[in-house]
Amino acid sequence: MPTSPSSASPLPADTSLLDRRRHVLGRHSPLFYDRPLHVRRAEGVWIEDTDGRRYLDVYNNVPHVGHCHPHVVEALCRQASQLNIHTRYLHEAVVEYAERLVATFDAPLSMAMLTCTGSEANELALRIARFVTGGQGIIVSSFSYHGNTAGLAAATTGLPAPEALAPHVRAVEIPDLTHWQGEPAALAARFAEQVADAVRSLQADGIRPAAMLFDTLFSTEGLPAVPKGALEQAVAIVRQAGGLFIADEVQPGLGRTGDHMWGYQAYDLVPDIVTMGKPLGNGHPLAGLVTRPDHVDAFGSKALYFNTFAGNPVSSAVGSAVLDVIEGEDLQGNARRVGAHIQAGLQRLASRHDLIASLRGRGLFFGLELMRDGRPAAGEARRLINDMRDRGVLISRIGPQDNILKMRPPMPFSIADADLLLSTLDSALSDL
Amino acid sequence: MPTSPSSASPLPADTSLLDRRRHVLGRHSPLFYDRPLHVRRAEGVWIEDTDGRRYLDVYNNVPHVGHCHPHVVEALCRQASQLNIHTRYLHEAVVEYAERLVATFDAPLSMAMLTCTGSEANELALRIARFVTGGQGIIVSSFSYHGNTAGLAAATTGLPAPEALAPHVRAVEIPDLTHWQGEPAALAARFAEQVADAVRSLQADGIRPAAMLFDTLFSTEGLPAVPKGALEQAVAIVRQAGGLFIADEVQPGLGRTGDHMWGYQAYDLVPDIVTMGKPLGNGHPLAGLVTRPDHVDAFGSKALYFNTFAGNPVSSAVGSAVLDVIEGEDLQGNARRVGAHIQAGLQRLASRHDLIASLRGRGLFFGLELMRDGRPAAGEARRLINDMRDRGVLISRIGPQDNILKMRPPMPFSIADADLLLSTLDSALSDL
Repeated sequence: MPTSPSSASPLPADTSLLDRRRHVLGRHSPLFYDRPLHVRRAEGVWIEDTDGRRYLDVYNNVPHVGHCHPHVVEALCRQASQLNIHTRYLHEAVVEYAERLVATFDAPLSMAMLTCTGSEANELALRIARFVTGGQGIIVSSFSYHGNTAGLAAATTGLPAPEALAPHVRAVEIPDLTHWQGEPAALAARFAEQVADAVRSLQADGIRPAAMLFDTLFSTEGLPAVPKGALEQAVAIVRQAGGLFIADEVQPGLGRTGDHMWGYQAYDLVPDIVTMGKPLGNGHPLAGLVTRPDHVDAFGSKALYFNTFAGNPVSSAVGSAVLDVIEGEDLQGNARRVGAHIQAGLQRLASRHDLIASLRGRGLFFGLELMRDGRPAAGEARRLINDMRDRGVLISRIGPQDNILKMRPPMPFSIADADLLLSTLDSALSDL
Repeated sequence: MPTSPSSASPLPADTSLLDRRRHVLGRHSPLFYDRPLHVRRAEGVWIEDTDGRRYLDVYNNVPHVGHCHPHVVEALCRQASQLNIHTRYLHEAVVEYAERLVATFDAPLSMAMLTCTGSEANELALRIARFVTGGQGIIVSSFSYHGNTAGLAAATTGLPAPEALAPHVRAVEIPDLTHWQGEPAALAARFAEQVADAVRSLQADGIRPAAMLFDTLFSTEGLPAVPKGALEQAVAIVRQAGGLFIADEVQPGLGRTGDHMWGYQAYDLVPDIVTMGKPLGNGHPLAGLVTRPDHVDAFGSKALYFNTFAGNPVSSAVGSAVLDVIEGEDLQGNARRVGAHIQAGLQRLASRHDLIASLRGRGLFFGLELMRDGRPAAGEARRLINDMRDRGVLISRIGPQDNILKMRPPMPFSIADADLLLSTLDSALSDL
């Protein structure tokens, strides 16, 4: 039996935390910013670094109801000190959370299957869709990300993944009215034709469509302005061909868009499966899906699905506490009100800074597209993000050209926070 | 936009918790026992139901260092109230935990990638193996379970899964000396031949082997007595063909086998990748893998892998606290000592009860094979498990024939707990 310790090359005592991290987690483990932020604590919409400097968080949707919200932390600690076990025993908290969660959806989405991560939720949704439809084909958008499993990597178009794109996957370009010169209906029709082409292309290869999987806010894609009716037409085409529509609510969900609890509710449709992730547990690994009871039943009769940690009493207590806060602090209403305030402020910035080519988003999720001389200004976006970090405001960027500033703060973002964001962004744009 | 609430059929107010659960989670969501246990709290090795009755937990490995261990709960609460965010910022706890974790492995396993669940860990291990080897083929045992993703379902032989078995998967039967009449070496040779056949069968279909994936204690399979050298030969054959060996430590890992920290250390080999799950976070969703730095680097240079919740400051604080308790309370030594005591006691039971056909396991993980008239006694095993539950002791069963009692208590199981298990089992066997 080998007995050599793995730490064959001990690091010098003065090795920096960054170098120690690279040594044990690898140099590809992602970090934000040219100068990574070394964090110590966080509260509400503020993150503090190890030097005691505070940063306004305009990026993180994981701490959905605010970093370290006391009501959520209290629920976590109380349940973790009483019982933390899988769901193969009966427990009130598990059932109560699932009931509260499904009650926020439209009929016939009345049954839940819980997981730990959004990846697991999308993976399970595709398993169900394939089982229910008997098909294998998947349609995704041409710049999307839905998770880190091999199956989802094969359908990933918005990140490097060696598995992409598998023969059973087709990608379609999400229509965006932002720079469209013609009639909205013409763009919608062009999108419908693309989806129909994708279906025909799968069928031509002998592959039946199982599902079309979209984030209905198209967050990774850069928050495009989708023409009215376009998504509904596309979903009808896929359903006509026997496929399901899966809405990935990891980013738009849980009230972020302000007008609705779930992103899909901005459209005139109800998905066949809705998947959820990040914000559900305010940082605790809680995710899942809701769908029609007959789909759960059909799948469960053939597949024994079990997820050890998913929806356990601790996760359920945390999930319920998050719903408490969303309701109790009217965070969906806050997203609508503060979102409108930011929207108006960003419009003013756009009128003063030529770099801003368009403004996108809904509720508390914004994109600012940067263009210079008619070309995507990815370099400027990168400089701006790093400069904003130095000025104490955390944002990021999205989109196929990496030139759309991404602003997606925790939900208790106030008017004062919004004004600080706007004034800092104004200065940074002026000094760029 | 549809506005109908999903709860189209409200349940009567007096609906039982079990019926409410079935209504919202589905009737296939797994529950233990003919009469499900309705649990309220737990501490150490004891679970209490809603009637205040206490049950000795001889089943759960998720609460590895004991249910609701105060040191672990304290670490969880402290960190959750300070900062709970992904790993795209620098944080000490994340690096420190990864360093402590890899230090428990043999060279060259010195780099970690953290995930939330064992399924995610095995899914990632297979992605890495496929990328590193360029192959697609997977070899598993003929009665195994490694996770709930589509990719792992395609390699699942021990549970119902509609995806099983995919064309790139081959299953081999794990050799068991328990009822073997010949020479151990002959059984080892037969196994080696089976593995070589699996490799040839893949190659004949134009599939290069990527990995052989085993739980080295073969927990789902029923804890067989593997002949000395058999696994080592099999691994050599797979490596010779260009494949990796992945050890799934979800069940044997973290000191459970008593003699070793990791199950693979009972053999004369070091895996290429080791995956971990359930016990790592004592109930908190924490899992991951360790492997060689060059594998992480090769994969990371082509695939952008990120797992939002994985190894965040809270998960890392919890993981470190679990390691503290394992070391501080010498739980590996306890597994060895109390395990030997139980082993001896089960031997005595076997000599008195004809139903017991064999005794299996290591450390604090036992299997009792039940046979009647030379046939697997699955019905008796089921009755016994339910009877033990009624007597206040929680156990389960495993194996292809469902006739092997599974006993795998939390690690702080004492001699007194062991004696209670043994006497209760003795009575239950007598009364069967």
